[in-house]
Amino acid sequence: MPQGSQSSARFASLTPVLAARSIAIVGASDEPDRIGGRPIAYMLAQNYAGAIMPVNPRRATVQGLRAYASVAELPEVPDVGVVAVPAGIAVDAVSELAARGTKGIIVFTAGFAEMDAAGEAAQARMVAAARAHGARLLGPNCLGLFNARIGYYPTFSAAMQTGYPRPDGRIGIASQSGAYGTHLFVVARDRDIGASLCVTTGNEADVTIGDVIGWLAEDDGTDVIAVYAEGIREAASFLAALATARDARKPVVLMKVGRSALGGQAARSHTASIAGNDAVTEAVLAEFGVVRARSTEEMLDIAYAATRRIYPAANTLGVITISGGAGVLISDAAETLGLAMPEMPQVAQERLKALLPFSAPRNPVDCTAQAINDPSLIREFAGAMVTEGGYASVLAFFTQIIAAASGMPLLRELAAIAAAHPDRLYVMCGIGPPEIVRQWEAAGYLVFADPTRATVAIHAMGRFGAAFARAPAAPPPSVPAIALPAATPSEAVAKRLLAQASIGTVPERACVTVEEAVAAAEAFGYPVVMKILSPDILHKTEIGGVLLDVADTDAVRRGHATLLERAGRAAPAARLEGVLVARQLRGGVECIMGINRDPVFGPVAVFGLGGVFVEVLKDVVFRRCPFGEDVAREMIGAIRGLPLLRGARGRKPADIAALARMLARLSAFAAQAGPALRSIDLNPVFAMPEGEGAYAADAVIDIGE
Amino acid sequence: MPQGSQSSARFASLTPVLAARSIAIVGASDEPDRIGGRPIAYMLAQNYAGAIMPVNPRRATVQGLRAYASVAELPEVPDVGVVAVPAGIAVDAVSELAARGTKGIIVFTAGFAEMDAAGEAAQARMVAAARAHGARLLGPNCLGLFNARIGYYPTFSAAMQTGYPRPDGRIGIASQSGAYGTHLFVVARDRDIGASLCVTTGNEADVTIGDVIGWLAEDDGTDVIAVYAEGIREAASFLAALATARDARKPVVLMKVGRSALGGQAARSHTASIAGNDAVTEAVLAEFGVVRARSTEEMLDIAYAATRRIYPAANTLGVITISGGAGVLISDAAETLGLAMPEMPQVAQERLKALLPFSAPRNPVDCTAQAINDPSLIREFAGAMVTEGGYASVLAFFTQIIAAASGMPLLRELAAIAAAHPDRLYVMCGIGPPEIVRQWEAAGYLVFADPTRATVAIHAMGRFGAAFARAPAAPPPSVPAIALPAATPSEAVAKRLLAQASIGTVPERACVTVEEAVAAAEAFGYPVVMKILSPDILHKTEIGGVLLDVADTDAVRRGHATLLERAGRAAPAARLEGVLVARQLRGGVECIMGINRDPVFGPVAVFGLGGVFVEVLKDVVFRRCPFGEDVAREMIGAIRGLPLLRGARGRKPADIAALARMLARLSAFAAQAGPALRSIDLNPVFAMPEGEGAYAADAVIDIGE
Repeated sequence: MPQGSQSSARFASLTPVLAARSIAIVGASDEPDRIGGRPIAYMLAQNYAGAIMPVNPRRATVQGLRAYASVAELPEVPDVGVVAVPAGIAVDAVSELAARGTKGIIVFTAGFAEMDAAGEAAQARMVAAARAHGARLLGPNCLGLFNARIGYYPTFSAAMQTGYPRPDGRIGIASQSGAYGTHLFVVARDRDIGASLCVTTGNEADVTIGDVIGWLAEDDGTDVIAVYAEGIREAASFLAALATARDARKPVVLMKVGRSALGGQAARSHTASIAGNDAVTEAVLAEFGVVRARSTEEMLDIAYAATRRIYPAANTLGVITISGGAGVLISDAAETLGLAMPEMPQVAQERLKALLPFSAPRNPVDCTAQAINDPSLIREFAGAMVTEGGYASVLAFFTQIIAAASGMPLLRELAAIAAAHPDRLYVMCGIGPPEIVRQWEAAGYLVFADPTRATVAIHAMGRFGAAFARAPAAPPPSVPAIALPAATPSEAVAKRLLAQASIGTVPERACVTVEEAVAAAEAFGYPVVMKILSPDILHKTEIGGVLLDVADTDAVRRGHATLLERAGRAAPAARLEGVLVARQLRGGVECIMGINRDPVFGPVAVFGLGGVFVEVLKDVVFRRCPFGEDVAREMIGAIRGLPLLRGARGRKPADIAALARMLARLSAFAAQAGPALRSIDLNPVFAMPEGEGAYAADAVIDIGE
Repeated sequence: MPQGSQSSARFASLTPVLAARSIAIVGASDEPDRIGGRPIAYMLAQNYAGAIMPVNPRRATVQGLRAYASVAELPEVPDVGVVAVPAGIAVDAVSELAARGTKGIIVFTAGFAEMDAAGEAAQARMVAAARAHGARLLGPNCLGLFNARIGYYPTFSAAMQTGYPRPDGRIGIASQSGAYGTHLFVVARDRDIGASLCVTTGNEADVTIGDVIGWLAEDDGTDVIAVYAEGIREAASFLAALATARDARKPVVLMKVGRSALGGQAARSHTASIAGNDAVTEAVLAEFGVVRARSTEEMLDIAYAATRRIYPAANTLGVITISGGAGVLISDAAETLGLAMPEMPQVAQERLKALLPFSAPRNPVDCTAQAINDPSLIREFAGAMVTEGGYASVLAFFTQIIAAASGMPLLRELAAIAAAHPDRLYVMCGIGPPEIVRQWEAAGYLVFADPTRATVAIHAMGRFGAAFARAPAAPPPSVPAIALPAATPSEAVAKRLLAQASIGTVPERACVTVEEAVAAAEAFGYPVVMKILSPDILHKTEIGGVLLDVADTDAVRRGHATLLERAGRAAPAARLEGVLVARQLRGGVECIMGINRDPVFGPVAVFGLGGVFVEVLKDVVFRRCPFGEDVAREMIGAIRGLPLLRGARGRKPADIAALARMLARLSAFAAQAGPALRSIDLNPVFAMPEGEGAYAADAVIDIGE
């Protein structure tokens, strides 16, 4: 990850692209509906204040503007140059712009890396040309962007033909897809939620989605960042951007597609096969408090809610409703999400019940339709929820009433409450024409038609708040520098390496001869576990290379022969170093721990319960390395099978502290090991009863080329 | 459940309430905005064809209509009478209407069973008065209903003040909540999906939500039934209604709230504590192919999609898109739902790829934005999907393009395809003004803005189709009539009762003396299981009353003493009948099976995997009794832990056929046992390897008062 100031400089270098003060369009068209014509038509229509310089060798004017025959003839160096010419001459156009000193270049042209190897080479030349002169390049094969705040529309999206975005919105959209980015913008525009900046990144030859998020995180005009992603290609900028946004308390809501496609990718080791890279992205997003939306509609719901800039670190929901059913529906949704709906104080309940005997003032507070006829009741009920209930978020369900005759008195009462307590998040579940919705928004209320969607959005605000309030993570444990062998080591060597990082393994001894094995077993006490010992056999169970419950001397002798015989048959070329004899632990909970190298994010730790939990239920959790014990505890606490570690079914609670220590050390070990470390697989790890530690019974360290 | 003709007569008796040809309003108001005024104002505005007869002793005319001083003075017997007078005189109004021969009565008035015991008694008198004359009664405490097809508005909902529903819609809404029913109607009206009938059932003193569903199922004007429910109070009518709807191939989509509240209800036995009554309702809905919506928005999405009346029994989805990202997003959603998206035939892919080299014709079929400029490409691509791909459902993602200049040529091409193959379900993911949306709908396309919501709705159509196409369930196995004892029997007696229904238990012997126990153990072979034997100790494990792995004669002797000692200490008053000695099964998968009596739906069977699966993961499935082996197999196939029964982790596959036989017999046993049977708990049940059977190792039969 780049240092703060480095990444900040990197993000700032996007300003000529995202907020240019002058623009040249190479391949400018006089026709406002052509690719090279739309940006000019849009900027003229929206009164872009900077110079617009069409480049077109065949025309003196373009859409009423003076045209220039070439980049060289431009009267000034533009902040940004748009390239809208065929692929064959696009690289030259980029070179000319960069050489002229243009610091931002946007390439609409397609036919590069997305097409074939020749296109990939041309794209590389294009980026080299830009970088040689310190220019940033958006695209190629992108739909461009718009920044409505300054009337800046370097895009050939047709969407502006059906309406322009508001210039005063505080939501920025970053999308890897052009067509889908347009869809998002149109939905956002029609809902009027204030998405006034939208960037599509196309092939990401230079500028990545991470760069755009980082720029938006540092942009004073942006409060909320909504991201549509298909795959994160580069970690450094993405991670720095998420850190910048979090530190600036700017919520990032992200929809990432490709769960199914990525899930099908061939996995390189046992634990990696449990979940694809999507799970790693999920873990990275959780690390930075990014809320991942399940649909783009949900993404825009959450972005809209975030424009109020109220992010309760300890979110609680109070519901005031004219429908008992809606109250139950919202309670269901809140409980499913884990959004608390504490009860109103008893004294307040009694007072409200006395005021309106038919009411149900517990929370949800059902003030019944009667309250609509008497605004003073609304004042009492909603007021009590804010002052006495103390809810961080208040959801009012008045549906079509906001558009009815009683809507205005209702608005006055609820607006007064919001004005008196502006620190709360207020949401109206209401249905009405846009002008009514705008009035409620002006009074401090978000407006949603659907109560379930409103509840999801409110919950997300609390998740942002909790992430912003979270204490800085503890540093990872320090482990000594450990030199990895050149090739994948045997189990015994792997365990010795782990021991250097104080990662505990089950007591065991490597034995070459059968007599050594018997001696080791006698020393440990029966029963023991016996395993084949070879650097060439990673998955011992699969060849019958592990014997459990070896009960006496005779069994050790027979086991020694069996293991060597099986290994010799299953892997004739394998180097056999003997057998491992280990104490057989009893009473522990079987877990797994491991490391996988993600191609984008580097080493990633995985933790789960063993056996059916991992194999049948895929109940595992991931985290980018390294991390401290606090994070390790969070991971352990996030698995569904947690009750088993906590002592379900009459067991003693397991030593979660020891597990967390081990997991954090493993993450530090992996982080310092460097890219040669392909994976680590500790399976099983026995979590013994509290105070008795955690031990890996098997360890595989896979070293790459 | 009533017989078909009985239930049909019951549903038909609602016609005077839901489609009255004449109406009296008792408590009619001259003011069109009062409760007794709104129905009249609405019906006048919507040209209700029948007689409207206001009853008001203080006025000669009401809203321009002749008023009558009393029910007795009405010039004719109205089909329906609306009661909109204070609670004190509402019962009399009902009596007078019923005595006069009115066959439908709608009571707006509140203050009955929802209030207190006196109100409950008054409500009972009201229902008795109606029933004495064969009248059906909707309410009390309900908002009424509307049936826009005949301009019939016996409702005091204010919602009509902001607009009336279409008279030609084919969706009927049944809602237990008045306020939320109004919300639903307003959302449906504003989306113009064709909800032209909406009934709210209030206190359900007589007419229940089941009755309304049944009437809608038999109504020629209704194609789709959308239900908002808070709790099912009565099983017979509800079950008959769902059966009627299924047999008529009318989809029912239902949103039921109260998961969280119901989950908190105290449960009466071990297995009941795993999930509340909501899980039973869920199972009943699944039994009849009802789709349960997660939100009311989703409910209306699905109802809207169902208006096309295309329910593919084997649903497959073909996606044509101008955005690759949207294609991936939809693929993700489809995979999550389990909606198949098979690949296009190779030959078709090659032809399309040749036509448009940048396209990706696999499925999703990305025809890129280029296709928009050449309608003949759309024809080729979409045509190939229908004829060669053969998809049951086609989702086209063209977003704002439908409202752009290229929208009309696109419409022409896609309309022609829909007209040529009208048996498919066509959905346009598009954004445009209402008039454009209506054009697409007229061309045979459903229109959704959000692709995820579109995918969910398409998937639901396939679920309806599969339910409609499902073969009739096999009959439950016949079990002999078994006389239950008067009180909860001991484990040994419970097992003998089950044996009469051929429900297998682990071989065991009841032993009074320690010598009998030793003899039994020797006969079975070691190890054995020993348990305390007492009709008064149901949950033996909790008092340490079960000993596993009893390995030899000495251990049997010690165990006998231990069990008697523990039982005497933990339950001094319990009658001790000795100990049970049982063979200890090895190699089986631990399951649970049981019966719980649901207060509404009667005996309900539960199945799950034992141990952590049931206790930590609540991985269980429910079904109303009785049922056959086919249903039992479906239940077993629905648990998340199924791979364990299928032979995960190197085990042999378990004897699922034997489990299914056992479960079906248990359901038949419970169904014939009558209401005295409170619950049965078989835990654990060992599913042995294929061909080796399934055996209950413990059995509790709980007999109620």
